[in-house]
Amino acid sequence: MGTLATYRQVVQEVLTAYYQETAGAMAGVERQLVLDPTRDHYLLMTVGWEQNHRVDGCVLHLDIKDGQIWIQHDGTERGIANDLLERGIPKADIVLAFHAPYKRPFTGFGVGRDQAEPQAA
Amino acid sequence: MGTLATYRQVVQEVLTAYYQETAGAMAGVERQLVLDPTRDHYLLMTVGWEQNHRVDGCVLHLDIKDGQIWIQHDGTERGIANDLLERGIPKADIVLAFHAPYKRPFTGFGVGRDQAEPQAA
Repeated sequence: MGTLATYRQVVQEVLTAYYQETAGAMAGVERQLVLDPTRDHYLLMTVGWEQNHRVDGCVLHLDIKDGQIWIQHDGTERGIANDLLERGIPKADIVLAFHAPYKRPFTGFGVGRDQAEPQAA
Repeated sequence: MGTLATYRQVVQEVLTAYYQETAGAMAGVERQLVLDPTRDHYLLMTVGWEQNHRVDGCVLHLDIKDGQIWIQHDGTERGIANDLLERGIPKADIVLAFHAPYKRPFTGFGVGRDQAEPQAA
């Protein structure tokens, strides 16, 4: 397991790189980088207007919890987990939190413990 | 117009109060306070599981931009603008950003300028 400081740095670097790559991709829609290393929540939001339609959503949502990086939401095409792996984060320390806990052992990534733990039906 | 430092403090206080009030309201679903005073983005997220359904959403999203407080998204029942008014923020410095710019003059709140500016059809 890496140090918390290293994980914080990697998460912020990965989000910032993706933000810089994709900023300005949609006219009229603003990308927002939201970094809260005090509470360990890291997001990329989109907000604005596409013609007369309101755009207001979360593209990426990562947390650091109990020494692991939790991908709460991933709206990217390439999968942000790949960026984390490339920067040396071990698979066991990445939790694909959008998969239910009972499915996670089959992902090859970290397991982790949610407050509610949905069981297989 | 108040100072930026005051607005930053009020926004963080209002979000923190609402977070503390509603934390633990739904079993298995975590509320997350996300405060980024460096980039002036302030959010309240929910994340977790309701039975086998994934919950992952934004309850509140406030920004500070050009000396005004922008309410990008408000999923509360009471309307977070009321909390801002109670703490002395003038109406003209609150932008209901989920209303299109051409509608805003009729809200009694601040106008503001988006990157894209939807016109009345």
